[in-house]
Amino acid sequence: MSAESGGLLFGIDVGGTKIGVCLGDTTGRVLASAARPTGREAEPAPTLEWVLEQLETFRRQHASGRPIAAAGAACPGPLSYAKGAFLDPPNMPRWHHFPIREFLSKRLGMAVTIMNDANASALAEWLWGAARGADTAVYLTMSTGMGAGLIVNGRLFEGPLGLAGEIGHIRLRDDGPVGFAKRGSVEGYLSGPGVVQVARAELLACEQAGESTALAEFVRDCGGLTSEHVCKAARAGDPAAGRVMQRCATELGRLLAILTDVLNPDVFVLGTIGSAHFDLWEPIARQTLDAEAISTAARHVQVRPTGLSDRSNQSALAAAWYSIRSDS
Amino acid sequence: MSAESGGLLFGIDVGGTKIGVCLGDTTGRVLASAARPTGREAEPAPTLEWVLEQLETFRRQHASGRPIAAAGAACPGPLSYAKGAFLDPPNMPRWHHFPIREFLSKRLGMAVTIMNDANASALAEWLWGAARGADTAVYLTMSTGMGAGLIVNGRLFEGPLGLAGEIGHIRLRDDGPVGFAKRGSVEGYLSGPGVVQVARAELLACEQAGESTALAEFVRDCGGLTSEHVCKAARAGDPAAGRVMQRCATELGRLLAILTDVLNPDVFVLGTIGSAHFDLWEPIARQTLDAEAISTAARHVQVRPTGLSDRSNQSALAAAWYSIRSDS
Repeated sequence: MSAESGGLLFGIDVGGTKIGVCLGDTTGRVLASAARPTGREAEPAPTLEWVLEQLETFRRQHASGRPIAAAGAACPGPLSYAKGAFLDPPNMPRWHHFPIREFLSKRLGMAVTIMNDANASALAEWLWGAARGADTAVYLTMSTGMGAGLIVNGRLFEGPLGLAGEIGHIRLRDDGPVGFAKRGSVEGYLSGPGVVQVARAELLACEQAGESTALAEFVRDCGGLTSEHVCKAARAGDPAAGRVMQRCATELGRLLAILTDVLNPDVFVLGTIGSAHFDLWEPIARQTLDAEAISTAARHVQVRPTGLSDRSNQSALAAAWYSIRSDS
Repeated sequence: MSAESGGLLFGIDVGGTKIGVCLGDTTGRVLASAARPTGREAEPAPTLEWVLEQLETFRRQHASGRPIAAAGAACPGPLSYAKGAFLDPPNMPRWHHFPIREFLSKRLGMAVTIMNDANASALAEWLWGAARGADTAVYLTMSTGMGAGLIVNGRLFEGPLGLAGEIGHIRLRDDGPVGFAKRGSVEGYLSGPGVVQVARAELLACEQAGESTALAEFVRDCGGLTSEHVCKAARAGDPAAGRVMQRCATELGRLLAILTDVLNPDVFVLGTIGSAHFDLWEPIARQTLDAEAISTAARHVQVRPTGLSDRSNQSALAAAWYSIRSDS
């Protein structure tokens, strides 16, 4: 794939907590951007009216007369690619079945590509980030949920129904924490809520053993735990938090080994919590990956943090780029 | 991909127990074929002299003056695609590092495509067999070893190093039988030797429990067990053999679920022992697949036996076809 165009791109990043909008070019440069919070009660139509206003302002103020070549929206899954609509994204009840592609296409007067955010991020990493130029790469979201975007044979691979890369659903252990409504799943270990679940179990074990841990202080001072707390405590040398990281990152290594044996990728890119605390995740995951996967393929594959400076906006631009790629 | 050519194809199927050779066309029709046993001590050069003689005879007697458009060899892995050579196939010690591509290309006066046999079979199933026209399909060898060939986005996907589809190496259980030098691996459950290992453990349990089983009769009468014996006994209603099939086919279902969550395929094609006894494997594997994978993707994917009438020869023809496909 390659994209050359004198035109600019509109990008829309739809999320459960905020919606972002940007103007950019085909090199992944963001020329203007804005975002505003959404929340569970946000209605799609008025929210998208704001999006359209912003895009019109960007076009007037920042496009310098260059045409808009394409528009794209990175959206939370699950999506119906056939209908260009949301299905039932768990954190966005008002958006269920909303036909975002048709709505935006009509109002913008151009085709709009919609893409789930894992795939859009994988494409952005492949175009402009840590997987640039790879034949085969996997982007792992490691965020509120855990999914993957796959680049295979130098192309985005979404699967016949757009369901490729649903790696959060793979069961790694018969026991273990619950994620994606499944016990011992990848999402149960390797999402923000997954890490918190493992930490809560560890905290309980500490309480029973009378061991003090910084995790208990976070619960007391902040009213709850986040994966950020766990990483912070592990970094500060808290043994219980260190055990949580060891457990979760070992499962990450097992997942990477499975994906290495199946796909023989050039690059894994760790998203969100995996990028923010790459130095905590990578050494443990790498050790397990090297022990578990075919050694030639394990030696070949790179594990990297994100290479994007503005992932949300650039993912939306990548979705836009996809509609003007040369091989479609 | 598509292949249209007035020319014919030479196919060579290299195996640890026999070598096959054929002349065919781009519709997968085999016009002439021959095979002869090899065995551990077979040397590559004299064996390939026989291959070249056969091909010359086929050309003279069966080509009716049509040109030979391409030649291909399906070979046991691991292969070096860069060097066009064998690496160290376990059952063929004399062929280690033999540069088969260069040897055949020089003597035939044409480019020869080499391909590992799992990939060649996947391509043949996609061109002419049970995965015909699929966007995304997985062929599982289920033979002496366990590997997969992947069709992704309507193209063969071999991976950057040719190591994609090494699914036999995935660990399904921390305990369990050994395959691919790894305990609890897919190959430990889902190859011929894997099924035999599970059966041997079951046989031991029967002996300890004083339970009679047809498996013991096979050992006594035939001096050992094969996966064929196990399937036969299960088909005849032997409870111990039934438990072996239940255990192995359940692990097959877990594997198919992992591959469904990663690849969202249209079709799985079960090779060799999975095809020969498809009615034993499929219902159990399907039940686990449906319980374990994302339901929309699980409902979508078909599980099928091979659709090829002459898999070995047609796989070799598919390797030849690959060099004249239109998208290369």
